[in-house]
Amino acid sequence: MKIKSFAPGKIILFGEHSVVHNRPAIAAAINRGVDVELTPRNDNIVHVIVPAIGYDEKHELTNSRLNYLIDSHKKMITDYIYEVINLFEFQSGFDIKVDINMYLGVGLGSSAAVTVSTLKAVSMYADKDYTKDELAGIARSIEIKIQGAASPIDTSMSTYGGIIYIDNEFNLHSVNVNMKLPLIVQNCQISGNTGKLVESVRQKYEKYPNIVGKIFDAMEQIAVDAKKALEEGNNEHLSNYMNLNQGLLDSIGVNTLELSEMVYTIRSHGAKGSKLTGSGGGGCIIAFCPDNIDEVYDSLDDNYPKFKCELSTEGVEASIIKD
Amino acid sequence: MKIKSFAPGKIILFGEHSVVHNRPAIAAAINRGVDVELTPRNDNIVHVIVPAIGYDEKHELTNSRLNYLIDSHKKMITDYIYEVINLFEFQSGFDIKVDINMYLGVGLGSSAAVTVSTLKAVSMYADKDYTKDELAGIARSIEIKIQGAASPIDTSMSTYGGIIYIDNEFNLHSVNVNMKLPLIVQNCQISGNTGKLVESVRQKYEKYPNIVGKIFDAMEQIAVDAKKALEEGNNEHLSNYMNLNQGLLDSIGVNTLELSEMVYTIRSHGAKGSKLTGSGGGGCIIAFCPDNIDEVYDSLDDNYPKFKCELSTEGVEASIIKD
Repeated sequence: MKIKSFAPGKIILFGEHSVVHNRPAIAAAINRGVDVELTPRNDNIVHVIVPAIGYDEKHELTNSRLNYLIDSHKKMITDYIYEVINLFEFQSGFDIKVDINMYLGVGLGSSAAVTVSTLKAVSMYADKDYTKDELAGIARSIEIKIQGAASPIDTSMSTYGGIIYIDNEFNLHSVNVNMKLPLIVQNCQISGNTGKLVESVRQKYEKYPNIVGKIFDAMEQIAVDAKKALEEGNNEHLSNYMNLNQGLLDSIGVNTLELSEMVYTIRSHGAKGSKLTGSGGGGCIIAFCPDNIDEVYDSLDDNYPKFKCELSTEGVEASIIKD
Repeated sequence: MKIKSFAPGKIILFGEHSVVHNRPAIAAAINRGVDVELTPRNDNIVHVIVPAIGYDEKHELTNSRLNYLIDSHKKMITDYIYEVINLFEFQSGFDIKVDINMYLGVGLGSSAAVTVSTLKAVSMYADKDYTKDELAGIARSIEIKIQGAASPIDTSMSTYGGIIYIDNEFNLHSVNVNMKLPLIVQNCQISGNTGKLVESVRQKYEKYPNIVGKIFDAMEQIAVDAKKALEEGNNEHLSNYMNLNQGLLDSIGVNTLELSEMVYTIRSHGAKGSKLTGSGGGGCIIAFCPDNIDEVYDSLDDNYPKFKCELSTEGVEASIIKD
């Protein structure tokens, strides 16, 4: 018997940065994320394997519990896995392989996807049948414990999937999407410092409230109108909104040479809309290719790693595979 | 005896494109432009030399006039020179060398600078002592005759120099500048089609009036605040306004891969503010380097042609050099 689970990563479609200043944003779960495979063992060993970071370690259960001591200074992606495992009692040990099929630490919600996917598989193995609301709540509390603070967006996306609209008061609303969302995600392999970038935008807003406020107004209008485009399935509008939003992000200083190069190159290869996603200063771009994703993808050179993805409508899923 | 004249080119500092939609803009005359040298001859020959385009032709005066027939289909920079020469009667012929010490056809006002500089030298040779207002008026009527339409900005900048603020009703106001304006102009050597770009922005505004209107609002605020920064001599604000404006131009779709590369590269080499100038889609960027222009200039590679310049405060000038 094996338990297999999957939890999606996420992208910010619209409103990164302006969301910090009480403007709406839109995030989408993607069908790339974290696959977990849990295989029961006949001993007391918990064997954790994370191929993406070459991690492979075994620890022993004591009185059905792992009680793994996390070194909070190291800030490793395995912290999320052990926090999950520490929550439960187990009849016997297990092998758990956590496959991170996305980029780590570039704003795609990898830690939430690791947490939610691991939580789903491990809780099933511990005979707990959590609802999605319970999974999202536990996952977020783990994110908060490890990161100090955590927005509910990432864990929500990894749990429920779909697209959410974050309103001006930071309430999350599921968007009734009526379109496919074929996206290419491309990674410039430079990490932006989210905290510093958020702070630099805050300072710019403080220094030039009239100008930056008007830019936030435009970002807000884009998010409001993009929600409608998603509901109506309007590819053209969605593409144009992405391109408009990209320039506004450039304006407030979170774009970079590499991101801009990627954004323009992928447009010239046929993407209809492209923009940085997340806090910028590095990280990833997304490119919307409603009817030519394979052509666009295949025509790009290998300067920057990339993957194709679609909307994940289901969120976290798991199945038990009998021997 | 020789007559030497100079008329400056211009750059748009702020508000290109939004100015078309009744938002303010700021233009500056630069100390790169068109140098004319007129040398009297003892015969009836008018000898026109334009080294930048390898032009060298002689024509004969008839009854003191040239009456050169301009082929309006060819749209040559020499059209402006001959339109000027056709205006006057001359006692004898002359050699006229028109040195275009700037880039042609990339939004730097080369045709206005050619017209104004030529007009100044040739009118002096024809014993006409025009005021600057008269020079600007005649030059603009020549621009209109050749181009069909012409904004007064270019001829005004070439004639009066300095910085002008174009208000919401398209009235020109001289700005009382209290700072130096050391700029690098860099040319991507791709010509943008101004007409098409203006039309594409108009269509975007028509399609997304709420979003693009808010972007124009931000551009307007930048122009209003930048006028103050120029009057107060605030380098930091001026730099930041350029960077903010650049992103907004990207947003409305007139930035390109090459322009963005130039903008980011020159910032990484120490420029404090940089943006495309003019209609975009190609053409030039400007980079403001208040205290390190030589270091920035010397550190750039030769991928794109560039020149250093400063504000031209005087506009068109001429002198008579005795033998």
